[in-house]
Amino acid sequence: MSDPIDFYFDFSSPYGYFGAEKIEDLAAGFDRQVIWHPILLGAVFKESGAKPLLEYPLKGDYMRHDLQRLSTFMDVPFKMPDPFPIAAVAASRAFYALTDQQPDLAKKVARELYRAYFAHGLDISKPDVVLDIALAQGADRQTLETNMTSDAVKQRLRDENAAAIGRGVFGSPFFIADGEPIWGADRFWMLKRWLKNKSWK
Amino acid sequence: MSDPIDFYFDFSSPYGYFGAEKIEDLAAGFDRQVIWHPILLGAVFKESGAKPLLEYPLKGDYMRHDLQRLSTFMDVPFKMPDPFPIAAVAASRAFYALTDQQPDLAKKVARELYRAYFAHGLDISKPDVVLDIALAQGADRQTLETNMTSDAVKQRLRDENAAAIGRGVFGSPFFIADGEPIWGADRFWMLKRWLKNKSWK
Repeated sequence: MSDPIDFYFDFSSPYGYFGAEKIEDLAAGFDRQVIWHPILLGAVFKESGAKPLLEYPLKGDYMRHDLQRLSTFMDVPFKMPDPFPIAAVAASRAFYALTDQQPDLAKKVARELYRAYFAHGLDISKPDVVLDIALAQGADRQTLETNMTSDAVKQRLRDENAAAIGRGVFGSPFFIADGEPIWGADRFWMLKRWLKNKSWK
Repeated sequence: MSDPIDFYFDFSSPYGYFGAEKIEDLAAGFDRQVIWHPILLGAVFKESGAKPLLEYPLKGDYMRHDLQRLSTFMDVPFKMPDPFPIAAVAASRAFYALTDQQPDLAKKVARELYRAYFAHGLDISKPDVVLDIALAQGADRQTLETNMTSDAVKQRLRDENAAAIGRGVFGSPFFIADGEPIWGADRFWMLKRWLKNKSWK
């Protein structure tokens, strides 16, 4: 099996949600695994000087329309949540609290957190909401509650953010395969091409 | 024949150059014509609050790499020009000075202006460079020189910019087909899908 694909995303990023819904099947088709890295884009934006798309007036209108059409033709349920954006700290920490011991559960919980926010409008910035969703997927609520706020998990999220910035990540979703950086849920065609040919020729 | 596709671009935009190299063949495949609209993104950025990609440190690195790989697999010669970016006023005015009387020549000149800048490193912000390129494509140099700086052509460019902003255009290339806005040289797959199905279902 070739090297895994790194998948960077922010739980508050709608395009990241589309990425999370599609990346595992895509990667499996090329016999690749995926390493998920929730990050906080706020920290990245501070570094890169950018702002969330919706804060640009013309881009915001485009994005609202674009998300609806992506939802339709990618067949992924989507409803623009309110409030938006939210702080993804609790959701990200829950992921890192689970992933070393129970990697499959961590991904399942991450997918359900995204769906809870972008399909059902639940506010996943609230630790209680995150814990309830994790419990429904089979996590031990009390252990997770303790681990989510441990110094080790808090530091892990900071380290992942720093590592992402160090690798040039500036958006969500952001994929890195064999060193090739690919940004955007609209670039699956490019990622597929790379995984197929391992070359741009 | 269905309605034409509107193609907005800035002569200083490398992604716009890739768009210009590919859009006519793509549209012809669906029996569509293309209306070209050079605009000045500087004016648009003022409205939208955005900045050129290269001014964001992480995005700039990504973009430099991305342009090279797009060049390779789209088979379009590309060399990052210096100076970059440049003012696209002269090139845009040359286009509008030609397009009403000689629409095919105007597109030919536009494509050659883009190639001159992004494949051969010529500084197309200089009116003389623009005029030489237009002459080589068959334009009357003296007539064009006069018309380029006429009040009518200057106003035409201002009107096209205002109209683009009014339609939500905020980047280059930016396509509008049947009211569907599609931004980016990496979204040809999406434009094709629309032209084929005229629906996102």
